[in-house]
Amino acid sequence: MQPYELTLADAAEAIRTGRLSPVELVDSVLERIEQVQPRLGAYVSVTADRARHAARRAADEIAAAGARGPLHGIPAALKDLIDVAGTATSASSRVREGHRAPGDSTVAARLSAAGAVFVGKTHTHEFAYGLTTPQTANAWDRGRVAGGSSGGSAVAVAARAATFALGTDTGGSIRVPAALNGVVGLKPTYGLVPRHGVTSLSWSLDHVGPITRTVEDAALVLGALAGHDPRDPASVAAPPADHRPGPGTDLTGLRVGVPGNYYFDHVDPDVEASVRRAIARLAELGARLVDVEIPMTRYIRPTHWGLMVPEASAYHERTLRAVPELYSADVRVLLEAGELMTAGDHLRAQRARTLLRQAWLDMMDTVDVIAAPTVPITAVAAGQTAVTWHDGTVESVSDAYVRLSAPANVTGVPALTVPVGLDPQGLPIGMQLMGRPFGEAAVLRAGHAYERTGTAGGLTPAA
Amino acid sequence: MQPYELTLADAAEAIRTGRLSPVELVDSVLERIEQVQPRLGAYVSVTADRARHAARRAADEIAAAGARGPLHGIPAALKDLIDVAGTATSASSRVREGHRAPGDSTVAARLSAAGAVFVGKTHTHEFAYGLTTPQTANAWDRGRVAGGSSGGSAVAVAARAATFALGTDTGGSIRVPAALNGVVGLKPTYGLVPRHGVTSLSWSLDHVGPITRTVEDAALVLGALAGHDPRDPASVAAPPADHRPGPGTDLTGLRVGVPGNYYFDHVDPDVEASVRRAIARLAELGARLVDVEIPMTRYIRPTHWGLMVPEASAYHERTLRAVPELYSADVRVLLEAGELMTAGDHLRAQRARTLLRQAWLDMMDTVDVIAAPTVPITAVAAGQTAVTWHDGTVESVSDAYVRLSAPANVTGVPALTVPVGLDPQGLPIGMQLMGRPFGEAAVLRAGHAYERTGTAGGLTPAA
Repeated sequence: MQPYELTLADAAEAIRTGRLSPVELVDSVLERIEQVQPRLGAYVSVTADRARHAARRAADEIAAAGARGPLHGIPAALKDLIDVAGTATSASSRVREGHRAPGDSTVAARLSAAGAVFVGKTHTHEFAYGLTTPQTANAWDRGRVAGGSSGGSAVAVAARAATFALGTDTGGSIRVPAALNGVVGLKPTYGLVPRHGVTSLSWSLDHVGPITRTVEDAALVLGALAGHDPRDPASVAAPPADHRPGPGTDLTGLRVGVPGNYYFDHVDPDVEASVRRAIARLAELGARLVDVEIPMTRYIRPTHWGLMVPEASAYHERTLRAVPELYSADVRVLLEAGELMTAGDHLRAQRARTLLRQAWLDMMDTVDVIAAPTVPITAVAAGQTAVTWHDGTVESVSDAYVRLSAPANVTGVPALTVPVGLDPQGLPIGMQLMGRPFGEAAVLRAGHAYERTGTAGGLTPAA
Repeated sequence: MQPYELTLADAAEAIRTGRLSPVELVDSVLERIEQVQPRLGAYVSVTADRARHAARRAADEIAAAGARGPLHGIPAALKDLIDVAGTATSASSRVREGHRAPGDSTVAARLSAAGAVFVGKTHTHEFAYGLTTPQTANAWDRGRVAGGSSGGSAVAVAARAATFALGTDTGGSIRVPAALNGVVGLKPTYGLVPRHGVTSLSWSLDHVGPITRTVEDAALVLGALAGHDPRDPASVAAPPADHRPGPGTDLTGLRVGVPGNYYFDHVDPDVEASVRRAIARLAELGARLVDVEIPMTRYIRPTHWGLMVPEASAYHERTLRAVPELYSADVRVLLEAGELMTAGDHLRAQRARTLLRQAWLDMMDTVDVIAAPTVPITAVAAGQTAVTWHDGTVESVSDAYVRLSAPANVTGVPALTVPVGLDPQGLPIGMQLMGRPFGEAAVLRAGHAYERTGTAGGLTPAA
């Protein structure tokens, strides 16, 4: 096994016990990037020299005083919406040509302080406003979409071209590409991880979180990211928590909600079968399955759009006037349309969100976790724009990919995706586990137990 | 002295010690209402039978088990935006004809539980969307405006036709009429007093609070109103506090900010002189005066309007379509204009508010209280629509009345108005004391000390 193949937890343990040096690990990952980047296009930029330098410093620090924690010396990739001092944050857009970040984002600073080594920046759907990330190919099938908007981060982790990565999620942008590439993605509770220094798509829905190979790895990264930062107005002062799941896989006492509506409507039969098998596994591990009904479902999409679209347009107002031709056509039309929305429609969305949040809190009084598909279909062919369902309904690919993820953005609840199998075409399927606000522990516990009793370490694409 | 002339604190003490019965007090106030209502028009409706019944029950309870607290048996008036189970909430509007409140508002329920006796509902500028309250006359001069929108409540208290009253405040609607009628008004910190069951003007700016004769009385009422209610999404779980100011008047240690900009610009010289004398009094009592500069002043008005106008229109959307002719012309034009605002403009206001709040918090790090005029002019003649300033600038009366109050709505900080004298026409002048969020104690302490060393019990209009 090459160092680049190690999970974060295993690499950290190897470093801690002196069996692996950060220099070897980073060199191995950088070689792996060179190998897969031409095929997959996960990275916008690779900072090899800087990474090797940081790895040597980490090695020296660890030799002198031991590892500061599990991220010390671990190679990480950042979605290219996340500022790192002195480097460009391209947002995968021509609009950002010549950009230079004024300083570290809070998450970059926290990962650096924890000793992580940044190997590069990964592609996003332009300004995170889309679900495919066209510059990047799916890690399992080059002819299929990476998913988005954190497509580069998910593909980098799936292809073992980063030990972990960060993504952002406004309607599913961590979970969708993680599911489509067979890796783990966590959208934390709204307000738990500060967004200072991260390019916004829609500030009332934006989240930053980890994309990793295992649930345990996601918990380790979350531990370094979480915590109050007054520079993000939505950041909350949650009590510090150890998010790392315990070693056991017994789920006795855990109540897992299984939606009777919404989450299994218009879902591919292979996806549904895999997720239902995974839910049955949770029950075998001791969880009690509870039927739940998702409230106010017809409000989810208009509320999500009614919040996101005008916030995105507000963020881009100046550049949209100054250099409209530098945006991709699909993003530009969304931004321009957003400028036409009335305050009344936006307020309706804000009010509906308040009611949706309360209705979800009420529903979640009866369960600890809700289990459901992450996306209703696996990765589509690049260029495919629509899906036709068994009843003849036609849905755009973007709408299908965002449909099951958006509720956790509107309500702010934590949501994890874990790989639960492959469809007949050999493409990964993800199960979504949602919790109560700041209920990351229950979500990670369920995901970890599932993972430990199945294909531990995640699925591996034929690379 | 007649019972109706007593302050809340004095009436409560008389009741507690058996020198006064709630029945006598309520009868006295009801007689006073009959006497002044034809001239002043403070009340929409007077519930004399219900009040007498409640007073008798309070008398029985007190005879049996003593008074539950300082509000037990005390006659109160509610602005007619505040629901009381089984009665109409008219909002002083023809739109509400035939209205019947589905239940008690949180504040009505809390006052009832504290033993207060409701004598009636008072006039508001229609749906709180204005600063004059045309149905009601100023308690000091029938030819002048009551101020608004809580004009009826302020006039009722000033005319001794209620021992205390509740108002609501979205841009100054408690403080403006309180100042113009020579009484005390408190807009508490945003989120401290729940708005469940209170008709909204603009939910992100609306506050409920007391209008009283003295600062001590305001503190007593606040004690009954404050506390978390999950039915108001903005209600916060603040630690319970005793808001009643101590008996002393020593202000040693209190830092009082005196604005060098904004609050004394375009202010009538008589108003300015009175307020500066009152500030000098605070210094004589031991307070340390500190120069402060109000930040981002050019954003205050557009932020306030950018939040209020579309929220008001959203609240009235259905009735504005169904029965536009039932609104007064001045309110209808505002509601209709609000429907034309874009989501972008509303978002700009929301973002500016976030920055304004932070800038105010930074400013208030250096002081405990800010002292300033409440309104730049005293009560204008009914029908007057504009003010001309010494430099030739013309300002609408509404803009003038709201100008110095709105910052505390946009930022959510607590703001108290206390009477500080009369202008040469014999009209009351108010000083505004603003504090840090949940800093009611400092504001009430300063106001109480000022009041105790001057015209204790408030000024009395020639009735």
